[in-house]
Amino acid sequence: MIYFTITAMQQIWLSLLSALSLRLVLPGGAEEGLEFPNFDGKDRVLDISERNYKKALKRYDLLCLFYHEPMPANKGLQKRFQMTELVLELTAQVLENKDIAFGMVDSQKDAKVAKKLGLEEVGSLYVFKDDRVIEFDGELSADTLVEFLLDVLEDPVEIINNAMELRAFERMEEDIRLIGYFKGEDSYYKAFQEASERFQPYIKFFATFDKTVAKHLSLKMNGVNFYEPFMEEPAVLPGRPLSEMDIVEFVTQHRRATLRKLRAENMFETWEDDMDGIHIVAFAEEEDPDGYEFLEILKDVARDNTNNPELSIVWIDPDDFPLLTTYWEKTFKLDLFRPQIGVVNVTDADSVWLDMSDDEDLPTAEELEDWIEDVLSGRVNTEDDDEKDDRVTVQMFCGT
Amino acid sequence: MIYFTITAMQQIWLSLLSALSLRLVLPGGAEEGLEFPNFDGKDRVLDISERNYKKALKRYDLLCLFYHEPMPANKGLQKRFQMTELVLELTAQVLENKDIAFGMVDSQKDAKVAKKLGLEEVGSLYVFKDDRVIEFDGELSADTLVEFLLDVLEDPVEIINNAMELRAFERMEEDIRLIGYFKGEDSYYKAFQEASERFQPYIKFFATFDKTVAKHLSLKMNGVNFYEPFMEEPAVLPGRPLSEMDIVEFVTQHRRATLRKLRAENMFETWEDDMDGIHIVAFAEEEDPDGYEFLEILKDVARDNTNNPELSIVWIDPDDFPLLTTYWEKTFKLDLFRPQIGVVNVTDADSVWLDMSDDEDLPTAEELEDWIEDVLSGRVNTEDDDEKDDRVTVQMFCGT
Repeated sequence: MIYFTITAMQQIWLSLLSALSLRLVLPGGAEEGLEFPNFDGKDRVLDISERNYKKALKRYDLLCLFYHEPMPANKGLQKRFQMTELVLELTAQVLENKDIAFGMVDSQKDAKVAKKLGLEEVGSLYVFKDDRVIEFDGELSADTLVEFLLDVLEDPVEIINNAMELRAFERMEEDIRLIGYFKGEDSYYKAFQEASERFQPYIKFFATFDKTVAKHLSLKMNGVNFYEPFMEEPAVLPGRPLSEMDIVEFVTQHRRATLRKLRAENMFETWEDDMDGIHIVAFAEEEDPDGYEFLEILKDVARDNTNNPELSIVWIDPDDFPLLTTYWEKTFKLDLFRPQIGVVNVTDADSVWLDMSDDEDLPTAEELEDWIEDVLSGRVNTEDDDEKDDRVTVQMFCGT
Repeated sequence: MIYFTITAMQQIWLSLLSALSLRLVLPGGAEEGLEFPNFDGKDRVLDISERNYKKALKRYDLLCLFYHEPMPANKGLQKRFQMTELVLELTAQVLENKDIAFGMVDSQKDAKVAKKLGLEEVGSLYVFKDDRVIEFDGELSADTLVEFLLDVLEDPVEIINNAMELRAFERMEEDIRLIGYFKGEDSYYKAFQEASERFQPYIKFFATFDKTVAKHLSLKMNGVNFYEPFMEEPAVLPGRPLSEMDIVEFVTQHRRATLRKLRAENMFETWEDDMDGIHIVAFAEEEDPDGYEFLEILKDVARDNTNNPELSIVWIDPDDFPLLTTYWEKTFKLDLFRPQIGVVNVTDADSVWLDMSDDEDLPTAEELEDWIEDVLSGRVNTEDDDEKDDRVTVQMFCGT
């Protein structure tokens, strides 16, 4: 749905949006095979109301509803609002053959529908799949949204059949993963599958019916392992066989990892899940030897402290967020060509950073742990340096 | 530079572009730390001409010139043209503190400047760094461009100091990499560094001054190893010590890999570098167990055939190109939830694909090699199935 009558100007916006990435002129050879989509101007996003929401829910494999505040009076915000619609329109077009519908729900005008559907966070996109709801609170760009929805369309449980697939599974250390061993697609497997649907696509569920694979993972029949990101040993879920609720409860309790990677698909959700108003944030480029080394130290620290519920470090790989890199450098007064770790106050983005100015000499795991202890005890905090700055200013005033 | 007088409408475009990714409404908590940049409307891109190009070359660390055809008469192309400018404007804004200038060079109006600067391919961005020119022929989006330019700003040679950094180096199997062992920053190292600048950031150069690191890599003093992507053993560059030209020549001769990954930063360049008008293309999601398994088979095949100059397989991970995934599925009539391999004719995107419909049973390395042999000998080609189709059509016509 385009919210207003389409004027000529808006049509121009539509075609503009299309060019999220574009080639101005084809090269001499005019080769084919890499054409980025252009928005075709066709309205696909629905205006959801009490009249049509039930039908939409029934009719499509996925229904994606963007829950938004009423059209703002402010011109700048209005334009952003329209851009959001256009991101949804382009996403809808790209996924046209996939049986996905898109709609907008106004928090005021459609308050009743929102309540019935359980929509709560304005600015989030809610994805309805069968009788589940999945909240998307990530970067609202067509790339991220398309990738996310393609993940949602996949089976929530991947089967691991052989040694090679097992290797693929073992490489995914950045993800929260569960794997269960079952005789086949019996009722225990079904309970596992039902649980997986509640966390798709944020938490990855795998299963195996293969004895050798299970043995390699020390999995007993109907047993389930839980892998926290970056940990070497899994936790074994207590009890066998497990009901859907057993699994859901365990995952809910353990899903905030000691070291978690910021991802475009749920970046705002992660950021909102702060620890008493702060985040310990580590910047490290995994592709860079220095960054890789620092990350390995960080993993050691996380492994040593995995049982501390007070500790959750957000790792940001600047390569994943090129448009934010210089914003972070400015906001936090950092050089992001090198690894960094600090404490960020999420209400005002005030921050303090560990001094690692000697390039050759990253901190050891012990030094890093000492510093983290200082953060958790409040000895290192974002307010201290402000006071220092104030004091310096006062002294300067006194001196003149 | 904005090409025209800024009208109210264009100002709207400017602010629209900003919202490549955006949050419509801040969440309840109004947390800070993740604000995507909004284009501020300030003109930063220069209109390059004979009068100003020398000064611009001298004044900035990097000068990025977009070489383009004259403003097209066609309205649709005009809008694309303006979007390109806006992508450049946003990139310039994001990188404002980095001493990078951006400019536009018109292939007609500025033909003389273009000739002097050696600009050749219309639609490419040329980056001037010291006395080198780097051509960017990738996805023209702000993300890709910012990431690319941040890479160009880094030192062209990374030093590997210890075992952990060595591990980081060894993990980069997707990249073309060189590593040299030198006594220190002597003239042999300098020659290596000069060579590295010619390939930055597409080919990665590393050096070590550490005996243990060198020993681990079987590197002799002043020796240089060349790692083709996905190969287990490096090639040793002939001769020691090596001049800049020795290195440049070797890299130029060996840079087209047997298996190469398509990347946003040079995707069009890769696609243009076809083999007699065709590409062997493999789709495989590395994060997916099936995709991973297929990729491992593919690597085996590539390792067995690394000395065949006729063979270069383009590996595309659909996860890297969400906006192109459904376009490829449609164009090539494929299901990209599973791995695929085929031959694509780059002039018309006509293609044939290996039948791998049985999910449980990926082809073995031998089967894949047989198929590739059939492709290289022409027994499998993109025209055969067309003929078959034609024949079917003829028969149908005869039958009626």
